[in-house]
Amino acid sequence: MKQLMLLVLLLGSWRAGAQQAPALTARLGAVSLTFALGPDGRPNYRVQHGTRPVVNTSRLGVALADGQGFDGPLELVDSEIKNVDETWQPVWGEEKQIRNHYQQLTVRLRQPAAHGRRLDVVFRVFADGVGFRYEWPAQPRLQYFTVTDELTEFNLPANHQAFWIPGDYDSNEYVYQTTRLSAVNTTAITPIQRKAAPTTVQTPLLLKSDDGLYVSLHEAALLNYPALMLQVNPQTFGLSAHLVPDAVGNKAYLQAPEHTPWRTIVVSDKAPELLASRLILNLNEPSKIADPSWIKPHKFVGVWWEMHVNRASWNYADSSNLKLAGTNWQGLKPNGRHGANTRNVKRYIDFAARHGIEGVLVEGWNVGWEDWAGNWKEEVFDFVTPYPDFSVTELQQYAAARNVQLIMHHETSGAVTNYERRLDQALGFMQQHGYAAVKTGYVGRIIPRGEFHDGQWMVNHYTRTAEQMARRRIMVDMHEAVRPTGLHRTYPNWLASEAARGNEFNAWSEGNPPEHETILPFTRLMGGPMDYTPGIFRIKLESWNPARNQGKQVHTTLAKQLALYVTLYSPLQMAADLPEAYEKHLDAFQFIKDVAVDWDETRIVAAEPGDYVTIARRAKGRNEWFVGAITDEQARRQPLKLDFLSPGTQYLATIYADGKDAHWQQNPESYRIRQQKVDHRSVLNLQLAPGGGAAISIKPISAR
Amino acid sequence: MKQLMLLVLLLGSWRAGAQQAPALTARLGAVSLTFALGPDGRPNYRVQHGTRPVVNTSRLGVALADGQGFDGPLELVDSEIKNVDETWQPVWGEEKQIRNHYQQLTVRLRQPAAHGRRLDVVFRVFADGVGFRYEWPAQPRLQYFTVTDELTEFNLPANHQAFWIPGDYDSNEYVYQTTRLSAVNTTAITPIQRKAAPTTVQTPLLLKSDDGLYVSLHEAALLNYPALMLQVNPQTFGLSAHLVPDAVGNKAYLQAPEHTPWRTIVVSDKAPELLASRLILNLNEPSKIADPSWIKPHKFVGVWWEMHVNRASWNYADSSNLKLAGTNWQGLKPNGRHGANTRNVKRYIDFAARHGIEGVLVEGWNVGWEDWAGNWKEEVFDFVTPYPDFSVTELQQYAAARNVQLIMHHETSGAVTNYERRLDQALGFMQQHGYAAVKTGYVGRIIPRGEFHDGQWMVNHYTRTAEQMARRRIMVDMHEAVRPTGLHRTYPNWLASEAARGNEFNAWSEGNPPEHETILPFTRLMGGPMDYTPGIFRIKLESWNPARNQGKQVHTTLAKQLALYVTLYSPLQMAADLPEAYEKHLDAFQFIKDVAVDWDETRIVAAEPGDYVTIARRAKGRNEWFVGAITDEQARRQPLKLDFLSPGTQYLATIYADGKDAHWQQNPESYRIRQQKVDHRSVLNLQLAPGGGAAISIKPISAR
Repeated sequence: MKQLMLLVLLLGSWRAGAQQAPALTARLGAVSLTFALGPDGRPNYRVQHGTRPVVNTSRLGVALADGQGFDGPLELVDSEIKNVDETWQPVWGEEKQIRNHYQQLTVRLRQPAAHGRRLDVVFRVFADGVGFRYEWPAQPRLQYFTVTDELTEFNLPANHQAFWIPGDYDSNEYVYQTTRLSAVNTTAITPIQRKAAPTTVQTPLLLKSDDGLYVSLHEAALLNYPALMLQVNPQTFGLSAHLVPDAVGNKAYLQAPEHTPWRTIVVSDKAPELLASRLILNLNEPSKIADPSWIKPHKFVGVWWEMHVNRASWNYADSSNLKLAGTNWQGLKPNGRHGANTRNVKRYIDFAARHGIEGVLVEGWNVGWEDWAGNWKEEVFDFVTPYPDFSVTELQQYAAARNVQLIMHHETSGAVTNYERRLDQALGFMQQHGYAAVKTGYVGRIIPRGEFHDGQWMVNHYTRTAEQMARRRIMVDMHEAVRPTGLHRTYPNWLASEAARGNEFNAWSEGNPPEHETILPFTRLMGGPMDYTPGIFRIKLESWNPARNQGKQVHTTLAKQLALYVTLYSPLQMAADLPEAYEKHLDAFQFIKDVAVDWDETRIVAAEPGDYVTIARRAKGRNEWFVGAITDEQARRQPLKLDFLSPGTQYLATIYADGKDAHWQQNPESYRIRQQKVDHRSVLNLQLAPGGGAAISIKPISAR
Repeated sequence: MKQLMLLVLLLGSWRAGAQQAPALTARLGAVSLTFALGPDGRPNYRVQHGTRPVVNTSRLGVALADGQGFDGPLELVDSEIKNVDETWQPVWGEEKQIRNHYQQLTVRLRQPAAHGRRLDVVFRVFADGVGFRYEWPAQPRLQYFTVTDELTEFNLPANHQAFWIPGDYDSNEYVYQTTRLSAVNTTAITPIQRKAAPTTVQTPLLLKSDDGLYVSLHEAALLNYPALMLQVNPQTFGLSAHLVPDAVGNKAYLQAPEHTPWRTIVVSDKAPELLASRLILNLNEPSKIADPSWIKPHKFVGVWWEMHVNRASWNYADSSNLKLAGTNWQGLKPNGRHGANTRNVKRYIDFAARHGIEGVLVEGWNVGWEDWAGNWKEEVFDFVTPYPDFSVTELQQYAAARNVQLIMHHETSGAVTNYERRLDQALGFMQQHGYAAVKTGYVGRIIPRGEFHDGQWMVNHYTRTAEQMARRRIMVDMHEAVRPTGLHRTYPNWLASEAARGNEFNAWSEGNPPEHETILPFTRLMGGPMDYTPGIFRIKLESWNPARNQGKQVHTTLAKQLALYVTLYSPLQMAADLPEAYEKHLDAFQFIKDVAVDWDETRIVAAEPGDYVTIARRAKGRNEWFVGAITDEQARRQPLKLDFLSPGTQYLATIYADGKDAHWQQNPESYRIRQQKVDHRSVLNLQLAPGGGAAISIKPISAR
């Protein structure tokens, strides 16, 4: 680790009311950040990219419950600049090494009206953006305090195009809206759970200016604080922080020394550079797991999609109004459609073993699903009692004999107090039965009642859970949890989260429009990996259950489903369709078998939000490349220079492309596979159908 | 167990709007209960004692969140009467056998506007009062539902005298007010935590009518429901149910079949009969603990009062702003006043061993006390880490060698989510170190934030905790928990609770007025045992710490402190003062050593709320009697017929009486002890000083 430090200490202190403190600037490459105290003594900042404004002068501040916060005039105590340039290795990720290069400006402020209470603002300026956070040093006049409001603003210079989803304290599972800032209004959008005011949107928020700047606003290292949402002023294009409240309307309970998460502004005049940014990861703390050897990125199949397409049920019986403790689960009348039965799970294990897929997820294995959702009920699941037709020990042996890992499922139904009380026992049960990974779920309204999925209490729950699992060497994939902020650097056993609209919406809603997956990398994925559950081969879902799936389909071609394994980065990838769907297209399934989930190198070949994304990645420790190219509803030709290949090596490229007549709606399952020899001078011309894509594996010929 | 059942089934069903359903009546002895549907179809009831009205026609009903509850007109489906007369044996208690004799009227109602949703009201009429509750049978149209309001009323016939404390969702630790109902107003009373509207009072509420009826309103078997408070209408003398809300303003989340707690009306024209009532215990379910052999009523001393009188501190250091996980507790600078140190605890163990006291409570043994209260902080205590000067293993051995039980202390600081997460580990720690009993504490605002001590979520927490402890054979004494409702019948390991203003208020507040202990049995103790912590011998507290305890004193004589061991029933009694205080008065301490904590027989000799209480009890399995007599601020002569003694047996009575010149304020520590032979024809004349009392032990002479 190389580290270069340069300290510049500005001596002295500027008193409010006296001569105004000079502005302070930090910069790296084209990005510059300026901090100042305004004429009213309030702190502000602005950000530029070259000569173009990214964020105009914008307020900084935090209000506290005792009224003596940092929302009024402050005094500058001193400031400090340092430069850092280092590289580090993630436990897993999109590349082997990550450079962390920034100039840091620390501004120390004092609240003159409150006995000199102290607040620091720390800015880190990278070549691709800025991160800043508020820090409260240990101090006698401020120990325990309650944040009622964060006053951070992001005043944008113009009426940018915005890619947004509505502010919802409990869910991110929305279709992205693409509008000018002036047109942001969530009124017409059906809420999934608890929507905030009509001009509140979530982060990561992507903005595109008319003069060609791409700006992503988000946060990094969300710990012990509520999630950041943004309130849009449609007249001024000013965005202001809106923190998710707790049950009594407060935002955060803090104890000094403490700090907020980093507020992040990633900026570039090239869209692909946004996707290559590691700014958010760099702002997170290094791994807390000393020996991460047990953490293994992996692929999995599972008893899951068959429930979404109405071929099976999570619940074992069709009874309702059962009580966890009072029900004779052995005596329940089975409905005959229960997916998580021993025989069916063995089928998945066999399939996984045959094709070298590491894991098998089983949802619906444990009692409680008969009326699990919508009742705001606390004692829904106990996480240790299987249904009568699911033999934990038999499947444990069966999977182990075939070298397949069963993946545990913990749906909490939002009843988090219940989960926390039972967590230790549930994890012990996992270890006892050989489970090394768990998918958690938080569907429904949270208990403690009044808390939200994205509030401070729940944010702490997710972290604490990841930590507790790490102590037991358990990997976790969280669904319906808060959206990621790069914490997978710190907790690499927290492999992925959902926290966006996943593939399953195609099964039972109006679905995800073809552009959806071209926006995700620019928005949700800026924070971290998503368990999107790609790989649906049987695109038209009526064929599974004509009565209940009428008109439902995945809004991509089959080839695009393959490409998503590369374009939607995750160390955890599901092959989400049913074994029988894959068995009809084993030639195409070969790509899913081959594709890596951990990488040494990543190239963003081409990308434009809402239109297309093409990414090439080199597999961890191997000279094999995988390429994914996707488009929205427009057909598109994507030239692909293979200049990233090693010179002097011959490769065989296997290209999984849309069929000539493919179309996401009219003919989605049309694909063709061809192979050709390539080297670093080759250029491929990919033809992407409407809603289509292409996936390529490239392996050195000598290695075959 | 003897049980006599008589079934009377009223056939047919009365439709709303058709001819009015006839009134239904149940009665036993002087008490009668009448149920009717009013002209508007709404259900009501009334209660009489002989010819005197106890509760005039009063509304019944429950409102639900979906608007289709039981707050409008209902139809009578049918009704049923049965008679029960049985006896049962408590695991421990005030007597060996308890008779449960009642007539039960079940009224089945239907909500015509909501597809015939069903609600039953079940009344049990005893010779000393009425209990009734709402029951929701299993039914297709009502499975999960949210109670927004309970509409139960208690319309009192006149402007009774009321003994009340203000409605506070979090605390019962108030001085009792004695006013007419028309004068109930809590505005001038300083809130302890979260006060309800100014005319809201808590139960147990004691009422005394001008025509000589004593009425106690409370509830029995408070499970899965919030505590009941009462809203007083000062004009009409009508009381209406006010349930403690949850974080979002709802009252209870229920799943059919379910029922509310029993609403109880204990009534008598003789005050002592109220204290002899077992109505509330009878309305609770039998013990859930199959083998209760490990549950042992006991006395204890402890490192506790020395903190209240400012001789020691709970905290080890005088630092503040510590973080549980981030603090080097070994390295903290000790303040030199920490009470729970090994040497001091050994002193208590020695004292207990010398005098045959079973237990030693130690508060402040575990890290976190430096800034435990007032910060609404979640991670305050971990319940397993001792301070550096407290050796768990050394004390475990020391106590075991002397046959003394150490009693664990779990202060939660109101952070109940934190406690629940750590509870299993904390109880494992107790078992590992030989602790069989724990005192829990809930000082401060509850986390989950927005919940209250007396709301449904916390009610469930207390029960769940008692159950979890029972599984590990641990006895519990809960402080700052919801006030009891007879659940010690069902969970006999839940020995006692605080839930009222205890003796410690005398140490640092204006104290408890001399009448306080004469009201407690008629109010708080109607629901169950209290850990009042009597036995303070050093009445004037300045002598412990002149600077900090100026003017502070216990508001009784020393002899009255002894009497409280009999008049305030509890299976758990602390000898709360310091060993050095007892060592100066070992002759008086003999009573505390001798007095039983479990009884075969109890006689309420004389009692008038606010004035005096005299009770005689026979020790479990022995022919020894103990008598306690107390008075308020008035001196009083209390004749005591010993007609409860066995005829033909000679006894020696040891009488611990106020000294001739004793007075709670001027001369509180003046007492005299005399012995005399007595038999069942003897009459003693007890002279009680102002704020005084007398305690008597009566043992058969042959047994000496």
